[in-house]
Amino acid sequence: MTPETTDAAAGRAATSLLTDQYELTMLQAALRDGTAMRASVFETFARRLPDGRRYGVTAGTGRLLDALAGFRFGEAELADLRERRIVDDVTLAWLADYRFSGDIWGYAEGEVYFPGSPLVIVEAPFAEAVVLETLVLSILNHDSAIAAAASRMTAAADDRPCIEMGSRRTHEWAAVAAARAAYVAGFATTSNLEAGRRYGVPTAGTSAHAFTLLHDDERAAFQSQVDALGVGTTLLVDTYDVPTAVALAVEVAGPELGGVRLDSGDLLQQAREVRAQLDSLGATKTRIVVTSDLDEFAIAGLQAGPVDGYGVGTQLVTGSGAPTAGLVYKLVARENAAGELQAVAKKSKDKASVGGRKYALRRRDSRGVAEAELIGIGRPPVDDGDDRTLLVPLIRDGERVFHGDLADARERHAASRAELPPTAAQLSRGEPVIPTIYQS
Amino acid sequence: MTPETTDAAAGRAATSLLTDQYELTMLQAALRDGTAMRASVFETFARRLPDGRRYGVTAGTGRLLDALAGFRFGEAELADLRERRIVDDVTLAWLADYRFSGDIWGYAEGEVYFPGSPLVIVEAPFAEAVVLETLVLSILNHDSAIAAAASRMTAAADDRPCIEMGSRRTHEWAAVAAARAAYVAGFATTSNLEAGRRYGVPTAGTSAHAFTLLHDDERAAFQSQVDALGVGTTLLVDTYDVPTAVALAVEVAGPELGGVRLDSGDLLQQAREVRAQLDSLGATKTRIVVTSDLDEFAIAGLQAGPVDGYGVGTQLVTGSGAPTAGLVYKLVARENAAGELQAVAKKSKDKASVGGRKYALRRRDSRGVAEAELIGIGRPPVDDGDDRTLLVPLIRDGERVFHGDLADARERHAASRAELPPTAAQLSRGEPVIPTIYQS
Repeated sequence: MTPETTDAAAGRAATSLLTDQYELTMLQAALRDGTAMRASVFETFARRLPDGRRYGVTAGTGRLLDALAGFRFGEAELADLRERRIVDDVTLAWLADYRFSGDIWGYAEGEVYFPGSPLVIVEAPFAEAVVLETLVLSILNHDSAIAAAASRMTAAADDRPCIEMGSRRTHEWAAVAAARAAYVAGFATTSNLEAGRRYGVPTAGTSAHAFTLLHDDERAAFQSQVDALGVGTTLLVDTYDVPTAVALAVEVAGPELGGVRLDSGDLLQQAREVRAQLDSLGATKTRIVVTSDLDEFAIAGLQAGPVDGYGVGTQLVTGSGAPTAGLVYKLVARENAAGELQAVAKKSKDKASVGGRKYALRRRDSRGVAEAELIGIGRPPVDDGDDRTLLVPLIRDGERVFHGDLADARERHAASRAELPPTAAQLSRGEPVIPTIYQS
Repeated sequence: MTPETTDAAAGRAATSLLTDQYELTMLQAALRDGTAMRASVFETFARRLPDGRRYGVTAGTGRLLDALAGFRFGEAELADLRERRIVDDVTLAWLADYRFSGDIWGYAEGEVYFPGSPLVIVEAPFAEAVVLETLVLSILNHDSAIAAAASRMTAAADDRPCIEMGSRRTHEWAAVAAARAAYVAGFATTSNLEAGRRYGVPTAGTSAHAFTLLHDDERAAFQSQVDALGVGTTLLVDTYDVPTAVALAVEVAGPELGGVRLDSGDLLQQAREVRAQLDSLGATKTRIVVTSDLDEFAIAGLQAGPVDGYGVGTQLVTGSGAPTAGLVYKLVARENAAGELQAVAKKSKDKASVGGRKYALRRRDSRGVAEAELIGIGRPPVDDGDDRTLLVPLIRDGERVFHGDLADARERHAASRAELPPTAAQLSRGEPVIPTIYQS
């Protein structure tokens, strides 16, 4: 173990080349023509939610703030850009001194969002802000997609815990971020050890089929696991025949056995049969955990059965049909030749944007139920007491000012989701649960 | 820039905690009961291809070999596992000395595959092999999913270049791997600078709408870009009105203008109109690049138009509907109490596996066209000259013996795909283009 390795694992890798080349070629041209230092406002928002979704979930903000701290062009990065002739020497010199000096506002992590919600607003000279586009979007698009799927799953599971176990079905570092995002959206634990180490997400895990197959028979495997991990462990009972395994599990561990796991077949029917069998054996407190390509719909269906926990893998880490949040990062205002800040917007067919520095409020009725996402240009109207301000300062004059942690984000998400009308929890396809209203 | 950052960016981060907790709890139990050192064979395969796909593409093998070199439990990792009480002291001591000492065979990167193809075979004591499960699967599931989608896109695009530009729509490090996998499957370039630096993938990029909006008018933006990047650059012509922008682009750059990019609207119709306009202005060699949520189906449709290049983003990095390859890692054989290697397989409903150490051959007819994926246990039959051996040694006695590079993988994919029956290129849903035959 070298110190380098430790530092890398702590997240201090350079992030500046996690960037599309055109950010730097635009920078080069702007440095040359004198527009690079024009004051600019970039906005991150979703034109729409993924098909049929009722709300989005802001996630990745904490990771973004960490990543921005590593957004520096060091010798290795500059040498590469020089050797591959990506940009000219003037641009390289500018990048060598790069420090973000502007302001960033955003929805706090965990907050729900809707079409048009300005999730991140970057206010800085064009040159400083444009180069952040790819990194901002990569982090928020991934983490928000996972959190949105996770939120539907935890809503469907109600008070039954959801366990994140999808690491093997996604990129090895995306897996760590996915475990973190799932935790923001209410998952209880993850299988991913690095997510435990790096972010403090509680981890869990006991055994796979390979462990049973390693042994000469199921009894030897169960006995070994109980000896090593205690009777509170969860035994996997579907390697061969489920009823035989359940009987054996209780025989080996006794009625204090912590849990059994089912990973195949008709989970609802099996859960009922296994519950009856466990109860008949006196193992009335032994929990039944089910896994096997679960998604929010399968969870909703299993709520009718005696299930004590849901392990979710593939569908969680792939966003349950919506693997990216579709967020974009658009220039909405910039200084003109006269030095005045001016709203700008492209007019591309089907991709028009709304110019101007936005404010955002969640309008709530007198009982505190969300009614609308209010978005406007300039200063927000005077608060009537029921509107909630959504944009918080994340970075001011280049310094991080937001220090909310993962536990905060998790609480915030629970509160933000609880504020939505009950139809937010419907899994069927529909419209966003509250409308986005542009105020003028 | 600290040296740590450079090393992290070079990929030397510790990878040992990119692992599911149950790999380590199984290890602890096996160390305790004496089965940990049983010789074992684990196999990575897909039970099926994603819905309707004709073939899979092996990708990530090179990244996996790099990652295995960093699979060490150093002080930071051990301290974390100790503090969080994930495993006991005996297990921690064993992990501290962890070095993989076994053999790994696999399909070479770029090779196509089918249901049941043994993409990676790990032969080692159970303890050494079981802990690699999550990392092996994360890397291959992600990269193979991207490469499979990319291969369909490059097949649809025929000799027109595909440009990977999806970084912003996926996790920031998954983006780097996606650019690499797309290159294996025939993409010409990527927008991702880190993929260029780390893997030598050719990079490309010029400007976004923000650059046009930054300037007081479109003419100023075009003039600036041409001044900075030369007349060979590609100008984005859909920020306001396309015909006006095309005329302006040729006026500013002259008929030697390298290219124009269309990013919205009806791309086929617009490409035709723009081609006619460019030709009428004498810019007969100016290329038309189109981007805007393209996938393999959109590319196939645009082949009828005068398009010179396809920029693909979201659909590439999300696997065009199949964001994970669904590969699993299963114990298929292990030493028994008598010291003999014995085939094992679970009998779980709908998830049964086939025990035994496999061989794999691609059967070809006399003209070299693939006919079947032959999989059997033990030694392969004597080659009749038309069968091609698919498993190559990757690691032997713990040492990496496979050193094929990314260019090799790209060539291998092209050759492997070319060997398939022509129906492999059909985009409609169907069965795998050749059957998998288990030989006995």
